[in-house]
Amino acid sequence: MVEIISIGTELIMGDIIDTNSQYIADKLTINGYNVNYITMVADDYEKITKVIKNALTRSNLIITTGGLGPTEDDLTREAIANALGCKLVKQQKLVNKIEIFFANRGYKCTKNNFKQACLPEGAETINNKWGTAPGFKVDFSGKKIISLPGVPVEMKKMFNKFILPMLVTNNKIIKTRILHVFGIGESLLEDKLEDIFYGNKNTNISLLAKKGEVDIRIIASGNSKDKVDRQINNKENEIREKINKYIYGTDNDNLPEVIGNLLKKRSKTLSIAESCTGGLIGSRITEIPGSSEYFNGGMIVYSNKAKINQLKISRETLNNYGAVSSQTAAEMADNVRTIFSTDYSLSVTGIAGPGGGSKNKPVGLVYIGLTDGQETNIYELNLNSKRNYNRWKASQYALFYLYRNLKRG
Amino acid sequence: MVEIISIGTELIMGDIIDTNSQYIADKLTINGYNVNYITMVADDYEKITKVIKNALTRSNLIITTGGLGPTEDDLTREAIANALGCKLVKQQKLVNKIEIFFANRGYKCTKNNFKQACLPEGAETINNKWGTAPGFKVDFSGKKIISLPGVPVEMKKMFNKFILPMLVTNNKIIKTRILHVFGIGESLLEDKLEDIFYGNKNTNISLLAKKGEVDIRIIASGNSKDKVDRQINNKENEIREKINKYIYGTDNDNLPEVIGNLLKKRSKTLSIAESCTGGLIGSRITEIPGSSEYFNGGMIVYSNKAKINQLKISRETLNNYGAVSSQTAAEMADNVRTIFSTDYSLSVTGIAGPGGGSKNKPVGLVYIGLTDGQETNIYELNLNSKRNYNRWKASQYALFYLYRNLKRG
Repeated sequence: MVEIISIGTELIMGDIIDTNSQYIADKLTINGYNVNYITMVADDYEKITKVIKNALTRSNLIITTGGLGPTEDDLTREAIANALGCKLVKQQKLVNKIEIFFANRGYKCTKNNFKQACLPEGAETINNKWGTAPGFKVDFSGKKIISLPGVPVEMKKMFNKFILPMLVTNNKIIKTRILHVFGIGESLLEDKLEDIFYGNKNTNISLLAKKGEVDIRIIASGNSKDKVDRQINNKENEIREKINKYIYGTDNDNLPEVIGNLLKKRSKTLSIAESCTGGLIGSRITEIPGSSEYFNGGMIVYSNKAKINQLKISRETLNNYGAVSSQTAAEMADNVRTIFSTDYSLSVTGIAGPGGGSKNKPVGLVYIGLTDGQETNIYELNLNSKRNYNRWKASQYALFYLYRNLKRG
Repeated sequence: MVEIISIGTELIMGDIIDTNSQYIADKLTINGYNVNYITMVADDYEKITKVIKNALTRSNLIITTGGLGPTEDDLTREAIANALGCKLVKQQKLVNKIEIFFANRGYKCTKNNFKQACLPEGAETINNKWGTAPGFKVDFSGKKIISLPGVPVEMKKMFNKFILPMLVTNNKIIKTRILHVFGIGESLLEDKLEDIFYGNKNTNISLLAKKGEVDIRIIASGNSKDKVDRQINNKENEIREKINKYIYGTDNDNLPEVIGNLLKKRSKTLSIAESCTGGLIGSRITEIPGSSEYFNGGMIVYSNKAKINQLKISRETLNNYGAVSSQTAAEMADNVRTIFSTDYSLSVTGIAGPGGGSKNKPVGLVYIGLTDGQETNIYELNLNSKRNYNRWKASQYALFYLYRNLKRG
């Protein structure tokens, strides 16, 4: 029985969103723990005390984040001591650390800074190598409280380095694999995979809908690493037999990176011509470090003038078929490939909305062009979301079609 | 004393992040309510009951989201009735609505669908015009429980249309204004505004740090609209006297939109040349509907080859000063302006990281060029974050310098 407590007035006022509890809940869940409650509470001595006391009545493991800083508002240490009915004790080791930290930077320590050296009686320090606020753990009649700082980057590193290994000490091995799926809706996917959700009690399959895509999560558990690996691979294979063409990656993969690796492997280069996406595809490709190895650049041709003058799209094509047409998409892809002398090119032209639609060409109509110099393929999309979601989906489809082409090639 | 309860196993497992409670907490806070606790709990009859009972001991107003659907996992109605010690009563009006809903779509109602017609005894329906799950409110010994569905778009519309007007019925008027600030750090801003935080007890100023920027939030309250408006305007003026040059907008403004409006007002056009940002600036500009009025397009010149061949940057400049230099940034801005025949142009070249840095040109060094054809200005940035944060900051600085130029002009 685990619960998570996020401490901070800024959370309770809705100024910022609490990402810490979701992060911890996800990590605990895939490691076989059941989280029961998540509570957010303000930086308030009495209220934090009450929440901790209540948690102790119903949970064996309590993880708190926030309220470990040096200011007067940081009251987690005090409230936990109060809830446990014990004192705060100054830890000489922590005092020394703080003095050294300040001396190294030429700053003067104030009295407040030594707050961070005080922990509830019997507590053990959890090192924070990434910030100044140490964490701690303390046992209380068979129950455990773990307190981590609220700064997400510090919390995550401490959680992964110290807390998770401490919690996952039993012999049960739990592994997770994520399959990233694009181009098929969640309900159709559910239908196609129906048989696979059931079966082995040691594996669990779930679908996690994300922005425009779905992740399939396989969790397997058992007593031996080999067995768990076999289980997880078998499930992955079963899934791939049914829907392989929609899977573009696993675990930490992302589509621009997967494409980048395929281009690098084949020593191929890419350029792009973007109209309605306005630079979004280029931006996503260049988020990947090292993308200069395969991405030369491209053109943002948002106006017809730019399409004609810079990308040399023929006036005839634009007059006869319009800027949003398969013909224009094809010329855009072909011309940008020639101009930038690359192996592959992608183009996108469409009506992102909210304006610009007509009966024949409604908002959401998008054409994607993809060429390797031999063959130019055009894909028509009919998206039906709002402007920026349409633009994101168009960029994702463009990258996805390139992925499929590279995968085949 | 208000508290918010978010109900759903997917929240407690960390599968998705709870945005509902933050939305409600923010709305309540700026309307003068104090939120005390936010709790997340799984779709579990016993646990929801316990959480509701505990909330009733400490809060007068309890708002729940989630668990109002037709499936067996949706248990909020049942648990609230249990916590209050009352029965669920089928509401004939809701039964009729559900039957009509299904008849209109040619579907058959199952028994499960009628779950949604049952409310705790004495509860009043809150209409859901945007989905099938109705909300409800119920009074219990002077306390009020309000239950809304968990689908964020439905919850938000119901909250704004029915809940907020119901809660904000007193004569006190509360108004909020946000000032968007860029180019100055939070602690420096705090120093500069020190005097302004204190003063009138009817206004409250706070700084909300966001990705790379800070929002200043002014909340004013009083008994007359005029007085509140005057208070809020006075505070805004006081703040502007001190730091006006860092403020680029108010309330729902965003930088690309503010720039777009200024360009439209002056009938000016823009083009861009991006290296390290790879299309991000173009993508942000074209997120704004109607941006085709002032944005012609641009070039993504990620490789030196593209800089030379497509943007006509002289080999001499690249050889003598390098791709990341003020000279290259200036030529990029000048050339893209000529090629795309626009009034203004922006250029960005830099080292986003993690690779590519050297002692003289470290990761984070970025040059931004801005030209109106008469004068070309170059700005040097020394960013010290990770790759994609550096890229985002570079795009924001580029847009911010253009904003300042347009504002002056």
